[in-house]
Amino acid sequence: MAITHLASTRDLSDDALHAILKDARLFVSELGHRHDRTQTLIGRNIALAFFEASTRTRLSFETAAHRLGASTVLFQPHGSSVEKGETLLETMATIEAMRFDAIIIRHATDGILNDVVQHVHVAIINAGEGTSSHPTQALLDVSALTERLGNLHGTRICIVGDVRHSRVARSQIQLGQRLGAVFAICAPPELMPVDTDPVFAHCHRFDHIEDAISWADVVSLLRIQRERITSVKVPDLDIYRASFSMTTERALQIPNVPIIHPGPVNLGVEIDPDVLELPNCLIHRQVTHGVAVRMAVLKHVLLA
Amino acid sequence: MAITHLASTRDLSDDALHAILKDARLFVSELGHRHDRTQTLIGRNIALAFFEASTRTRLSFETAAHRLGASTVLFQPHGSSVEKGETLLETMATIEAMRFDAIIIRHATDGILNDVVQHVHVAIINAGEGTSSHPTQALLDVSALTERLGNLHGTRICIVGDVRHSRVARSQIQLGQRLGAVFAICAPPELMPVDTDPVFAHCHRFDHIEDAISWADVVSLLRIQRERITSVKVPDLDIYRASFSMTTERALQIPNVPIIHPGPVNLGVEIDPDVLELPNCLIHRQVTHGVAVRMAVLKHVLLA
Amino acid sequence: MAITHLASTRDLSDDALHAILKDARLFVSELGHRHDRTQTLIGRNIALAFFEASTRTRLSFETAAHRLGASTVLFQPHGSSVEKGETLLETMATIEAMRFDAIIIRHATDGILNDVVQHVHVAIINAGEGTSSHPTQALLDVSALTERLGNLHGTRICIVGDVRHSRVARSQIQLGQRLGAVFAICAPPELMPVDTDPVFAHCHRFDHIEDAISWADVVSLLRIQRERITSVKVPDLDIYRASFSMTTERALQIPNVPIIHPGPVNLGVEIDPDVLELPNCLIHRQVTHGVAVRMAVLKHVLLA
Repeated sequence: MAITHLASTRDLSDDALHAILKDARLFVSELGHRHDRTQTLIGRNIALAFFEASTRTRLSFETAAHRLGASTVLFQPHGSSVEKGETLLETMATIEAMRFDAIIIRHATDGILNDVVQHVHVAIINAGEGTSSHPTQALLDVSALTERLGNLHGTRICIVGDVRHSRVARSQIQLGQRLGAVFAICAPPELMPVDTDPVFAHCHRFDHIEDAISWADVVSLLRIQRERITSVKVPDLDIYRASFSMTTERALQIPNVPIIHPGPVNLGVEIDPDVLELPNCLIHRQVTHGVAVRMAVLKHVLLA
Repeated sequence: MAITHLASTRDLSDDALHAILKDARLFVSELGHRHDRTQTLIGRNIALAFFEASTRTRLSFETAAHRLGASTVLFQPHGSSVEKGETLLETMATIEAMRFDAIIIRHATDGILNDVVQHVHVAIINAGEGTSSHPTQALLDVSALTERLGNLHGTRICIVGDVRHSRVARSQIQLGQRLGAVFAICAPPELMPVDTDPVFAHCHRFDHIEDAISWADVVSLLRIQRERITSVKVPDLDIYRASFSMTTERALQIPNVPIIHPGPVNLGVEIDPDVLELPNCLIHRQVTHGVAVRMAVLKHVLLA
Repeated sequence: MAITHLASTRDLSDDALHAILKDARLFVSELGHRHDRTQTLIGRNIALAFFEASTRTRLSFETAAHRLGASTVLFQPHGSSVEKGETLLETMATIEAMRFDAIIIRHATDGILNDVVQHVHVAIINAGEGTSSHPTQALLDVSALTERLGNLHGTRICIVGDVRHSRVARSQIQLGQRLGAVFAICAPPELMPVDTDPVFAHCHRFDHIEDAISWADVVSLLRIQRERITSVKVPDLDIYRASFSMTTERALQIPNVPIIHPGPVNLGVEIDPDVLELPNCLIHRQVTHGVAVRMAVLKHVLLA
């Protein structure tokens, strides 16, 4: 029997994509209610193999699994056998041999998930891979936006920030375009993707957030590391903020434009603290959709 | 609907306090028996957010949750988004958005729990806050003492050690006084609380453990860090031991006086190893009551 | 009632040993099947106290517990009370007082498990002790070999590598001999056990893996740390490989001789990467048996 993976968004047929989004909507409505706990995945055992540090993604997957009755174990490479001379694929083969029902992997190396899927015979779920993909983040972005906007047909989404290094941007564009959204990107020149990167081929490009705001139905902010600001010759934080931050003033100009961000937010850098409390800011709602989407993905992968 | 918290002992009405102590008594009698496992909290999901390192308190809460059928996830700040520019309240808002049924928090900053309770809409349980409060520790102290003594009406409890910096002392006094206990404190001058600290307003003060022992119905020891001994000009360990340690000799003088300690014990500093084995030493019994009390608190908070 | 431990293989009567191996065979056949999940240990709470770092053994025990419906908590000494002046036995007494149904311990000190068993009144399971014992590893070795060979009566097993420091070797010999196996050891002189070590009294000794291969029905490889190779005057890796490694060429000479290894493998040192894919290499199968054997051990200890 074929194994169902979610190593990339391409693993999702249109039917699977819509089934996941539909399940996620149901789970969102149930989260926080005490009387509708399901045990759909009782007795299932899931391994999280996080080769990159993460807090929110790990907690989100863990609680998603627990809410469906599945158990989890956590593998983090620090001090582990990966550092003792074992290759990643051999480590994955070992975890496979423990007969988990699925392995959720986060890893800094692009393309590694494809290698893992070829090598092991267990369901693999991508929890973030290098700069190339983060499918459950894209699903939760889409789920939260769809809840607010109804659907994404023709919706103009502008992604602002460190686009070049962002797996969030790449997966969001790939998934959003399938659902009819149109994308633009807005970044300092050094953080723009290279021209040959095919993911961004059909994206408009802006060099100032004011232009992005004028164009967009949705503003999708990315995390920018302070260290990177100086390294790309944006001489200081004030200059970055002047051209690329979602300040309170800007956010108040677009009360009907949803603002999303993958978190954790870098307050005072890409976004002002007060923006978090505005009605068009979906950042906390995205987190709730994150749990719901991951529940739906686990159900999809494990019950396929 | 109002959310039930245990951010401080003041969150407990007299009814709630007595209900928790009653439940804890029942849970203590069941712990270790194999046939009375309850699944009262099955399907509930609890996050532990431990911004301060802890072993025994974390394990105690985790197993308390598991014994009632709830699942847990662990968030520790090391390497997490808190260090990447997110504020604590924003981190808590994120965890709230994952729709846990409760968040158990330990944090080094006094007053932070109150901020959190104001900011998020999820049940908050205090697992130790700065130097000011540690309600479940106070509950387990009271639970273990009540089991031994029947009740605490008029019971004279002397707290010995680093009182000034102790959240254990503060919560124990606040809760114990509600149950009728009378408190004294015994410490080197530098580890005595400042005169204006209202928690200690009605406490007798002793400067030698022998005087404390003569007065007390219960001796409540605190952990003293070796580093602090030198910093407060108690010139060496021998001098500290001479005036403030529960030596085996002293413990044998008071066979009917319960000795308690929040753990982990600093053997040979505030207590001699042999004291742990004496019948009037309740230290291990406190640990058992710790699990039972936390089960009762979880039930109180989650089923309120 | 007497507590059932697995602190050493000597804790297993012949009846218990055969019951565990029989249960493990059943669990192996069920692992990976979705419809036969058992909840034999539902409501049981197990603590893992890993004073030595471990990934695969920890994950294996955790998932074994979860597969039977038990919950787990993890205690690791880094930053814990063990470093704050508490003795190991006092730490164990504290964990005992939390009323776990069993404590699984890994520790670097030989003999410590016996001390713990004397001191606490809770089921203790050995997950690796110093250089002296690792009973569940031996059980999984035997379980995987029995599956392949039928039984071990008269089976000649040669252990190759750092025998002197290996708890895997010691437990494998002690358990294998009870089941009728005959052992040899093969190592550089500096990694041979001392002559007076009674465990190896009846073992043949070889100084070249080619001789071991000619003699053996099973080749049992051990992990060798690169650092140790130089420290024992094996001047470089090539010389070690020439005399002690399971190269692909050697493995192909013995297609009917099972090759086992406790993992994690040190690829290119004690074993070539290609060997992992050969049909007579049981290394991944051992990992599967590891989960099954630990399920059987937990059942044995907790339901005794």
